[in-house]
Amino acid sequence: MQVQDIQFASRFNGLSGSAIREIFKLLAKPGMISFAGGNPAFSALPDEEVAQVAQKVLRDDGKRILQYGATEGYPPFLEVMKPYLSEHFGVDMEQNGVLPTTGSTQGMNLLCSALIDPGDRIIVEDPTFLGNMQCMKLYQAELVPVSSDEDGMNMEDLEEKIRACRPKMIYTIPTFQNPTGRTMSLEKRKKVAALAERYGVVVAEDDPYHDLRYTGQELPTIKSFDEAGFVVFLGSFSKVISPGLRVGFMAAEPGLLRKCVIAKQSSDLHTALLNQAICAEYISQGLLAPHIEAICRSYSVQLETMLSGIGQINAFTWVTRPEGGLFIFAALKEGLDALALLPKAVDAGVAYVPGTHFYAGGGHENTLRLNFSMAEPETIRKGLALLQGVLDNT
Amino acid sequence: MQVQDIQFASRFNGLSGSAIREIFKLLAKPGMISFAGGNPAFSALPDEEVAQVAQKVLRDDGKRILQYGATEGYPPFLEVMKPYLSEHFGVDMEQNGVLPTTGSTQGMNLLCSALIDPGDRIIVEDPTFLGNMQCMKLYQAELVPVSSDEDGMNMEDLEEKIRACRPKMIYTIPTFQNPTGRTMSLEKRKKVAALAERYGVVVAEDDPYHDLRYTGQELPTIKSFDEAGFVVFLGSFSKVISPGLRVGFMAAEPGLLRKCVIAKQSSDLHTALLNQAICAEYISQGLLAPHIEAICRSYSVQLETMLSGIGQINAFTWVTRPEGGLFIFAALKEGLDALALLPKAVDAGVAYVPGTHFYAGGGHENTLRLNFSMAEPETIRKGLALLQGVLDNT
Repeated sequence: MQVQDIQFASRFNGLSGSAIREIFKLLAKPGMISFAGGNPAFSALPDEEVAQVAQKVLRDDGKRILQYGATEGYPPFLEVMKPYLSEHFGVDMEQNGVLPTTGSTQGMNLLCSALIDPGDRIIVEDPTFLGNMQCMKLYQAELVPVSSDEDGMNMEDLEEKIRACRPKMIYTIPTFQNPTGRTMSLEKRKKVAALAERYGVVVAEDDPYHDLRYTGQELPTIKSFDEAGFVVFLGSFSKVISPGLRVGFMAAEPGLLRKCVIAKQSSDLHTALLNQAICAEYISQGLLAPHIEAICRSYSVQLETMLSGIGQINAFTWVTRPEGGLFIFAALKEGLDALALLPKAVDAGVAYVPGTHFYAGGGHENTLRLNFSMAEPETIRKGLALLQGVLDNT
Repeated sequence: MQVQDIQFASRFNGLSGSAIREIFKLLAKPGMISFAGGNPAFSALPDEEVAQVAQKVLRDDGKRILQYGATEGYPPFLEVMKPYLSEHFGVDMEQNGVLPTTGSTQGMNLLCSALIDPGDRIIVEDPTFLGNMQCMKLYQAELVPVSSDEDGMNMEDLEEKIRACRPKMIYTIPTFQNPTGRTMSLEKRKKVAALAERYGVVVAEDDPYHDLRYTGQELPTIKSFDEAGFVVFLGSFSKVISPGLRVGFMAAEPGLLRKCVIAKQSSDLHTALLNQAICAEYISQGLLAPHIEAICRSYSVQLETMLSGIGQINAFTWVTRPEGGLFIFAALKEGLDALALLPKAVDAGVAYVPGTHFYAGGGHENTLRLNFSMAEPETIRKGLALLQGVLDNT
């Protein structure tokens, strides 16, 4: 037999790798201005502090940190997370448990493992984060897109789809959504929690951008309105400390959390203890709040620079105006195809992600996502000028 | 609706958490002598060196380490791993790629994701590592046990089962097997590689104990005999540097590895870069070989102590005599039930893992697994005396 004859599992049928991660590989070209990623700025990565914190936790508790740990979490991490989830995210920690995850990517994976059989339906915002759509597809879920308004999912469409499709899960990024940057209104947050209870659907509230707010008023999480236990909160330190450390967390009702623990036992046994310890110590030392303040100051200027620059490009017909996060989403004149134009843009030295990748059903070829966190204001202006050269001369 | 009404995915039907991990929770009792775990000794965890190495890599390459990385791996880790796999494990790196995994636990999970549809068959050694059996069960595989001889799987039984069951995968721990401590002979290693090619079955060669040899001659890996690309090598730094860091690796033919990369994208995106960097730097600095030498010296004495002590206990009818690894496996007189006796042993202050958990079909209630790496020789003697009190007075 030849190795080419190996029959792969059916979950891979029709699936390719993440389109974004393939685009990333095109960006190796020196000098490329990338609006394509979703990365924190390098200046936002606290390498000096993490070096000190890593040193400290290894000196203080090195033997325990290097040994096997419980799937349920490194005790000092759990001690920090309980008040953090309660005070910062409004999670009722008497009714919920917390589980460290290897990035919130793993949180989504464990939740799919707990709930999804092939053919089960998951409601997603349209557009939404494509990485997690790929995860759902690997679990052979059927994705049911719900249209998005300026203030989050359309509630009539949501309720209608819940009734019609009997989904197992609703996946939402309510705050500074990926890819749109939009934020779900307070009323809709309450409504989503109520619909979850009414119809018995689990809500996955993915909230990695929560703290990256540059203007406007912080809103309570959907989870804070969850009395019945149907809302699962997925958080991450990737955008506020470091994505390379791969530390996220999940807060959920104990019965559901237990299934995630079992799934995690055979996913990676436990999240690396050193990484849990670093995040816990970083928070305990009071480093997180001032760090977030500092990165928000920079990102805020970058967002403003991008929004004002984009106004100069005639090819755009609309653009979202987020109050935080890492992304804006924009549409080109009908007939312009952001996917087809990408190679031209990359040749010119600037990259973005075509919006079509974020729609469960494809289409919307005239849309694109622009990230503003990776480039300094001067570079943003330069990149937009290059983009204008491509778009306005097409 | 009530949260208790949530219908979990069918992969959880009939599955409970890892029996071993539940037993671990019983061991919190102060003074308990545990032969139950599979942990490295605390003295084998190089906390001082890791603190220095962590400091160094964060100072040298902190920004890259804290940023998002490629699923395919942190470049300095890959640079170290290629010669390491080739020279140390005999992997042909012209024909194979390497992927860092979040412990070798994740390697098994990715491989199941790539290959296993519900109902697909996986051949396992009988007995075998129960953590990976749980992983296979979550993928709804049907486990086909093959009987084990002193020198590894019975080859006649293996070929017969391959013909009869058309498995997608053969799972083996050829070196210092968990739970038996047995090592597959050279002839059988060649034979397994040949059968894999002949019948087109993927072999998962799980080799975490490879370097923990205290006596006898090192044997080449099954992977080193793999010309057709059907053997996947799963390795880990858990037993030789630190399990808490969660760094393992997988070497496989590129087509199969690509499926694992896609599955990993939505499992945890990538293995934490700090942890990859620590392992790479630890090896680059030449710390690994002398560290392995030092831990083998201690473990060797511990194994000898356990083997000579166990000879004093009349209740045992046979015991394996491994040349390395972390475990011995033993059988009690027929009629004695190691599972039923465990609470008595725990009350007396000593713990083990009942052997029945390691058999795909259960049974073998008179067997048990004893770990010798966690206890000093004096403690091993004390623990065996306690065990004798329980077993020989039953």
